[in-house]
Amino acid sequence: PPGRKVLIVYAHQEPKSLNGSLKRVAVEELSKQGCSVTVSDLYAMQFEPRATRNDIVGCLHNSEEFNYGMETWEAYKRGGLSSDLIEEQRKVQEADLLIFQFPLYWFSMPAIMKGWMDRVLVQGFAHEFPNCYDSGLLKNKLALFSFTTGGSREMFAKGGISGDIRYLLWPMQHGIMHFCGVKVLAPHICFAPEYASEEKRKEMLIAWAQRLKTLWEEEPINCSPEWYFK
Amino acid sequence: PPGRKVLIVYAHQEPKSLNGSLKRVAVEELSKQGCSVTVSDLYAMQFEPRATRNDIVGCLHNSEEFNYGMETWEAYKRGGLSSDLIEEQRKVQEADLLIFQFPLYWFSMPAIMKGWMDRVLVQGFAHEFPNCYDSGLLKNKLALFSFTTGGSREMFAKGGISGDIRYLLWPMQHGIMHFCGVKVLAPHICFAPEYASEEKRKEMLIAWAQRLKTLWEEEPINCSPEWYFK
Repeated sequence: PPGRKVLIVYAHQEPKSLNGSLKRVAVEELSKQGCSVTVSDLYAMQFEPRATRNDIVGCLHNSEEFNYGMETWEAYKRGGLSSDLIEEQRKVQEADLLIFQFPLYWFSMPAIMKGWMDRVLVQGFAHEFPNCYDSGLLKNKLALFSFTTGGSREMFAKGGISGDIRYLLWPMQHGIMHFCGVKVLAPHICFAPEYASEEKRKEMLIAWAQRLKTLWEEEPINCSPEWYFK
Repeated sequence: PPGRKVLIVYAHQEPKSLNGSLKRVAVEELSKQGCSVTVSDLYAMQFEPRATRNDIVGCLHNSEEFNYGMETWEAYKRGGLSSDLIEEQRKVQEADLLIFQFPLYWFSMPAIMKGWMDRVLVQGFAHEFPNCYDSGLLKNKLALFSFTTGGSREMFAKGGISGDIRYLLWPMQHGIMHFCGVKVLAPHICFAPEYASEEKRKEMLIAWAQRLKTLWEEEPINCSPEWYFK
């Protein structure tokens, strides 16, 4: 609906890929609805995935023994995080909905996107004990994981050789998003597009556009072990 | 035992950290046994986690539409991967045992280590359909995930707020190592060392050294959904 803000965190090297097209479809459809859409195109930004001392501007809280979690927490509180992190945090803060668009790499997101999670969602900003899970600091936001797989739907079925696809969503949806208080919409999964016909790939794009039309009416999943491992 | 080769892939910024000490303990104990031990110290190496066109030397197989999986597979076959990847693959090839030592970041490994998985374990080297899972190309090797957590043992218990710690091992142990044919030893987990006394932290190091003394007698876990989600 008009006025809603969406951040798409996008990790694919090739604009012509299906991931690139899925990202474009989302920008177009959500803009058409009157949403304001921002894209963090991680490869184009050459986003830094490594969690290092460079993320803290100025002196360290404890320069004797570097503790990344402690240092970024302290730096966040005094406004001393590196500018790329402050910029990403600003985008997250403004967003009502976060969409993560990526190809599944090794049952998870590509390292460049994992680095976005590791570096952007620092303590003080996204969580601060005991404000985690349902009381995480990013509550009232929604997240949606939209990704493509190499393996087929059959491989990722319960009893399939790769196991129920929901098993691998636990760290991303529960361990990261739910921990920060973010409510999670059902994932959007395109299975094995590399082995699909051009027509099937077009259908995948149409299905995504269709889903986005009524996305704001969706209820979040019940992010408990039952959803994942039942 | 004498002659066995071990590769420790290590991801912590601070040598004085518990992770740094756990790594040192492993090098010492395994060397004492007569093993030959190699360490990939990812932060010290400033290891590149991003999967990009730079990983392929020379011309692309398809420069019209960049496909990382396809391009690295083709480059592997013609010896055209970047030199840092060739070097890591050589270390993996020689190793009987891979130990991954890291602090748990967001229910998974730090991005710098995920980048090692994304970039080193390319098709052709680690797997090549249908040679995956039990017939993966790295069969006859062992792997062990050794890590520290922020959350307590209680939080990571079955029924705890973060769920059974085994849930989050599925993508790493099954999705990555088992996919490549590697057999997985039981994980080694130090819960919440930041909140432990100096004495407790010393006990953690001693326990790790003790386990390593009889490591070669251990049987791999049964890497099936039952182990993870029973």
